[in-house]
Amino acid sequence: MKARVHVTLKNGVLDPQGEAIRQALSTLGFEGVENVRQGKLLELDLAEGDPASAKERVEAMCEKLLANTVIENYSVEIS
Amino acid sequence: MKARVHVTLKNGVLDPQGEAIRQALSTLGFEGVENVRQGKLLELDLAEGDPASAKERVEAMCEKLLANTVIENYSVEIS
Repeated sequence: MKARVHVTLKNGVLDPQGEAIRQALSTLGFEGVENVRQGKLLELDLAEGDPASAKERVEAMCEKLLANTVIENYSVEIS
Repeated sequence: MKARVHVTLKNGVLDPQGEAIRQALSTLGFEGVENVRQGKLLELDLAEGDPASAKERVEAMCEKLLANTVIENYSVEIS
């Protein structure tokens, strides 16, 4: 069973890395990019067979390790 | 118009950061995580209004800047 986790900065949290990417795109001639936010993508292979309990476990992993919930949101997709 | 870009390491490319996360999860008592791969998630706000040409432009950005196509794959979703 595979899990895909998106970790993104919360609204209002500054993202200097995203801003650097936006400026680099502009320098390269890609106009019309108004904003860029950089987040993390984690792909986990799980031994767990049940989607509901897999999702619950991955959410626990996010709370404890994968995301900093003070400044980041996360979402979990199981497939 | 928003674009979401997933940048992931190609199969066969070592991912020490993913491996470190897997070990950390195991240390925290999360068993049954067989593999972890870390990738990047980029969210772009575009001035462009047409989905097809927006996708084309974001793919060009990936080729030029956002992904290292020697070792990384990318996928673009427009919404």
